[in-house]
Amino acid sequence: MNASEFRRRGKEMVDYMANYMEGIEGRQVYPDVEPGYLRPLIPAAAPQEPDTFEDIINDVEKIIMPGVTHWHSPYFFAYFPTASSYPAMLADMLCGAIGCIGFSWAASPACTELETVMMDWLGKMLELPKAFLNEKAGEGGGVIQGSASEATLVALLAARTKVIHRLQAASPELTQAAIMEKLVAYSSDQAHSSVERAGLIGGVKLKAIPSDGNFAMRASALQEALERDKAAGLIPFFMVATLGTTTCCSFDNLLEVGPICNKEDIWLHVDAAYAGSAFICPEFRHLLNGVEFADSFNFNPHKWLLVNFDCSAMWVKKRTDLTGAFRLDPTYLKHSHQDSGLITDYRHWQIPLGRRFRSLKMWFVFRMYGVKGLQAYIRKLSHEFESLVRQDPRFEICVEVILGLVCFRLKGSNKVNEALLQRINSAKKIHLVPCHLRDKFVLRFAICSRTVESAHVQRAWEHIKELAADVLRAERE
Amino acid sequence: MNASEFRRRGKEMVDYMANYMEGIEGRQVYPDVEPGYLRPLIPAAAPQEPDTFEDIINDVEKIIMPGVTHWHSPYFFAYFPTASSYPAMLADMLCGAIGCIGFSWAASPACTELETVMMDWLGKMLELPKAFLNEKAGEGGGVIQGSASEATLVALLAARTKVIHRLQAASPELTQAAIMEKLVAYSSDQAHSSVERAGLIGGVKLKAIPSDGNFAMRASALQEALERDKAAGLIPFFMVATLGTTTCCSFDNLLEVGPICNKEDIWLHVDAAYAGSAFICPEFRHLLNGVEFADSFNFNPHKWLLVNFDCSAMWVKKRTDLTGAFRLDPTYLKHSHQDSGLITDYRHWQIPLGRRFRSLKMWFVFRMYGVKGLQAYIRKLSHEFESLVRQDPRFEICVEVILGLVCFRLKGSNKVNEALLQRINSAKKIHLVPCHLRDKFVLRFAICSRTVESAHVQRAWEHIKELAADVLRAERE
Repeated sequence: MNASEFRRRGKEMVDYMANYMEGIEGRQVYPDVEPGYLRPLIPAAAPQEPDTFEDIINDVEKIIMPGVTHWHSPYFFAYFPTASSYPAMLADMLCGAIGCIGFSWAASPACTELETVMMDWLGKMLELPKAFLNEKAGEGGGVIQGSASEATLVALLAARTKVIHRLQAASPELTQAAIMEKLVAYSSDQAHSSVERAGLIGGVKLKAIPSDGNFAMRASALQEALERDKAAGLIPFFMVATLGTTTCCSFDNLLEVGPICNKEDIWLHVDAAYAGSAFICPEFRHLLNGVEFADSFNFNPHKWLLVNFDCSAMWVKKRTDLTGAFRLDPTYLKHSHQDSGLITDYRHWQIPLGRRFRSLKMWFVFRMYGVKGLQAYIRKLSHEFESLVRQDPRFEICVEVILGLVCFRLKGSNKVNEALLQRINSAKKIHLVPCHLRDKFVLRFAICSRTVESAHVQRAWEHIKELAADVLRAERE
Repeated sequence: MNASEFRRRGKEMVDYMANYMEGIEGRQVYPDVEPGYLRPLIPAAAPQEPDTFEDIINDVEKIIMPGVTHWHSPYFFAYFPTASSYPAMLADMLCGAIGCIGFSWAASPACTELETVMMDWLGKMLELPKAFLNEKAGEGGGVIQGSASEATLVALLAARTKVIHRLQAASPELTQAAIMEKLVAYSSDQAHSSVERAGLIGGVKLKAIPSDGNFAMRASALQEALERDKAAGLIPFFMVATLGTTTCCSFDNLLEVGPICNKEDIWLHVDAAYAGSAFICPEFRHLLNGVEFADSFNFNPHKWLLVNFDCSAMWVKKRTDLTGAFRLDPTYLKHSHQDSGLITDYRHWQIPLGRRFRSLKMWFVFRMYGVKGLQAYIRKLSHEFESLVRQDPRFEICVEVILGLVCFRLKGSNKVNEALLQRINSAKKIHLVPCHLRDKFVLRFAICSRTVESAHVQRAWEHIKELAADVLRAERE
């Protein structure tokens, strides 16, 4: 395919994309396919001779679309949102054409420098403490990671390196293994599974602090765990506090937990993967109070800030903590500016070596929406679904609704709620996923699509009510 | 921006992309900017009100392009290639519109299933042993990772979990830390820095086996290290063998190293990040002989197989080895099919949770080129630059040229070669990076751009010769 065919096919693809987005409401949100549906539909091996573009684009509709879960359908209320906007798609197209691999400043200065400045822009939108920003040659700075899982892992590894260095400086006879055996990391029992995974990967213990009645980590439970573990000879070194948990969007009490971490020399990583986008609105900013105690902070613009996946924003107060954990400089990656102190080589901040020019997406989205446009988008979220649920005495709201997630259930057994969820997801008119809150099976209703409106929420609720009536009738029979 | 404005702007962007690709030869391959160039050119904070698309696209040319290292310029001969093709860009556009996050089968069945089948297609193109393929319900299978670094890390973590389980099954009193203290991983002294990094992250020792005169790892050096380490009470558990090293494209001797690893119960991971693409050509397939001894194998179609970054192909013989290292199943990610044994939840195969619909790029590229088209592309690489260098008695070739990388230098001191490289990269007509081979400073000339032709190679060589003459003249003076 040459440039002139690309011009033609690219424009057809732009129309296909626009048609898909415009027509998405008409597609069934969750597919009808069974496992293994796809393999029989395509050849067992790649063709020897080229297929035509027409063949392929026809197969997209015939083979791919029937198996797609439509995350951007206004009837998709599962998991958390994943961002999608036209400006981000345009930027990603440009990113594909430039196609640079920005592992070092020299590998593409624009790729590194725009990222640094965009992370400052975003940090300012959130009113992050200045210590996290890169500008004015501070010690902090931001980086785009691929996912919150990677940000948590990178923070844990940096904390691990730091504590090992500190302890070995004091007691040079200590081996790394002897220290690692005693290291213990913490999160609340509501933290995302990726935190446990980071502990597994890092080869350290990870303990879950029991959350309170609002599913929040509090000082008392943390203090208790720290006393017990220190008495047992363990070394607390890392804490993940979550703002907006995946299960139920609860918030750990940063103002209580933060000072304890600082006092005990525990690296505090704040994970606001979903909720973080809301903090650009002054009325939600108080939820971030206490971030000043953190060593690192992360949230995902690719969830709720209109920047398509992947774009996970991470800031640290001391960038040398990250680079100290990873820095390796083979000759083929050296360049003349790297020891000048003026530049950033983002490869030292992350797990992979390669990286795309992802900051273009932030730049396009921030400029084409403007801060006010982004705030308006966050605010579009209403508490409408919550109030609908509250009006129906058969249902209960399980956790205070703070942002765009409503955890609800039928009053009654887990069984009846499992039956309700099964009916909802079998009917495939809307799509939800459940969670467990303590011993309760709970349905999660998350506002996801950029294009969701009041009418969709109301239709979804009518549908849920009908299925609930069926379930309750079936139970009585 | 609504769908109709996206139709218009998207088409303009397609033209911008095509213009960029068509005109790239006219752009200076390496930018003139100094560190910090970008920040003064853009505002210190995001705009409150939206900017227009015209503003932004004008700024791309004014602010971004002057700081871009043009990886797809036919005068870019640095690092290794990063892939770029129009079919991959079209697929990535579609991927952006669908915008699903394929962490589980249920999260988008098409995303998971196309990946599984594409990895089989690619495995067959390479004539990988059947044990690595997913089809016919074998135990193996393929997954797209973001980078070779991640593949190496995932393999190391899987191997670590496996050996810990094995040793604890035999001696239940052993703690994880006691085992980890003794674990030792290996690679050749020519392996990529990401291997050392994987060891750091995994918290295990990583030892470099001295390579032979051709920069290859051989049986004797490995045996020696194993005897010594086992005698010291260490536990060898993991080996990375490289096919096509980054420094000089040397090949570890898999046929020697593989059987030793199998006999010693050492997980063998084969990293062919760059070279792997060549194995689709029958005449290069012999370079992969010995992969049958491996537990995992990885290469990057995003380097040299026309699939834009990121797309790092990894296969394992036993997929439960990977999933066993990571598996965690919170309620909000459970779905009804997951215990059926019929489906793949790729989140258990990788570090991040989220993942894009990257297999679309493989599908578009494999179909629009056909296997023959892909082979023709790999073969386009000639040994032309090597023969030009060999004709000039002032220069020497430093390592046998097997694929598209030529390691060369002026006969003489490192200083004169450093001076030559500095002149080349200051002139900015072409772009190269160096490497160290033992004590020698060496220039690397890698065939990178999809559009590089004989004329570009010849022009580059004329240019290098002129600068070399200048350097030699300056030295004599």
